[in-house]
Amino acid sequence: MTKGPDKALVVLSGGQDSTTCLYWAIDRFGRANVSSITFDYGQKHRIELECARNVAAAAGVPNACLPIDTFAALGGDALTDTSIPVSDEADEETELPVTFVAGRNLIFLTFAAAYAYRHDVRHLVTGVAQTDYSGYPDCRKETMAALQEAITLGMDREFTIHTPLMHRSKKETVELAVQLGALEMLALTHTCYNGRRPPCGDCQACRLRARGFAEAGVRDPLLDIR
Amino acid sequence: MTKGPDKALVVLSGGQDSTTCLYWAIDRFGRANVSSITFDYGQKHRIELECARNVAAAAGVPNACLPIDTFAALGGDALTDTSIPVSDEADEETELPVTFVAGRNLIFLTFAAAYAYRHDVRHLVTGVAQTDYSGYPDCRKETMAALQEAITLGMDREFTIHTPLMHRSKKETVELAVQLGALEMLALTHTCYNGRRPPCGDCQACRLRARGFAEAGVRDPLLDIR
Repeated sequence: MTKGPDKALVVLSGGQDSTTCLYWAIDRFGRANVSSITFDYGQKHRIELECARNVAAAAGVPNACLPIDTFAALGGDALTDTSIPVSDEADEETELPVTFVAGRNLIFLTFAAAYAYRHDVRHLVTGVAQTDYSGYPDCRKETMAALQEAITLGMDREFTIHTPLMHRSKKETVELAVQLGALEMLALTHTCYNGRRPPCGDCQACRLRARGFAEAGVRDPLLDIR
Repeated sequence: MTKGPDKALVVLSGGQDSTTCLYWAIDRFGRANVSSITFDYGQKHRIELECARNVAAAAGVPNACLPIDTFAALGGDALTDTSIPVSDEADEETELPVTFVAGRNLIFLTFAAAYAYRHDVRHLVTGVAQTDYSGYPDCRKETMAALQEAITLGMDREFTIHTPLMHRSKKETVELAVQLGALEMLALTHTCYNGRRPPCGDCQACRLRARGFAEAGVRDPLLDIR
């Protein structure tokens, strides 16, 4: 096979981080070479899917939405199981946050690779971050490195997983969005664990986001939506 | 966390190889410590799911069936896309067989790990084989090693992926089934790419299976079902 052009696929959740990554990818690969993929995995907050669609449309890049019905069938996490309230608490048994969906990022990136495989795309971009990673082991650099090797070997195609936020704090992620001219776009995003837009301001996700903007000395445009 | 007992989860497709692996796992871990998982990923041949259920029931181990609706949404392979006939031909563009579902084994094992994570199981068993691997890059030893690292890091749990057939030819796989007392169980399995039981005998999968039994000098019990 001949080597294709440098095209990138961004895993877009509709949140602040993946939206910033979308603009990072546009900056690096050019708008015409960037597309996005979103997963409908049965998340309680359907608003995420709408935010992803709106962000992609506003950014002028295609957005594919793929269903994954498996996590709901697996059950047992607070983001898909309606019987578990979202909270900051850790699961007693695993000591991981109750919002941890085991394998979620591994699955997202593997399906993203399968989609990329069919569209001659070799660059995958994800907003996972080791800093402020809220105890999710699938966000670590080492995990992403191992996964990149697994998908490269497993599909016989040289994939690169880009993690532009890996070592950035929330403050630095806000600064990156400003630098990329993506700040206003963050009004279209969704972060709140309680599914609210405007955000609840109380949950761990809202508090992390608010702290990042505060430390960067920038007003979050999401607070000004009505 | 304390280390759990040595429990194993077998990825059971309802075919000859995974059925042999189920008996390998029973032999190694003890029947009471073995369970099986099957994926309903939209395969054309629904008979596979029935075979998996029958094999597990006959072996006396639990069988969980998890849905994956994503591959059908991705499209483009002969095992799930009804517009592509199953054949031995390679895709012109990728040079991989048209039956190659990009990322399939990576996804199966990652979801198996997510299921195992919730059930305190650390050993995963899969029937992938590098020998006779029909050109599927996700069956290779290196792919499995990278994936084992990705799921171990990504879920913060020490998983081991066992591939008892990795370096066995089809002949040696038949011999292993005989040695494990699992030969008669192979009458319950399904191999044919054309979805037939008794098998069509013509497709690549049937021919591979027949050659293995012939070389082992053993009659395939599947040929005697009515």
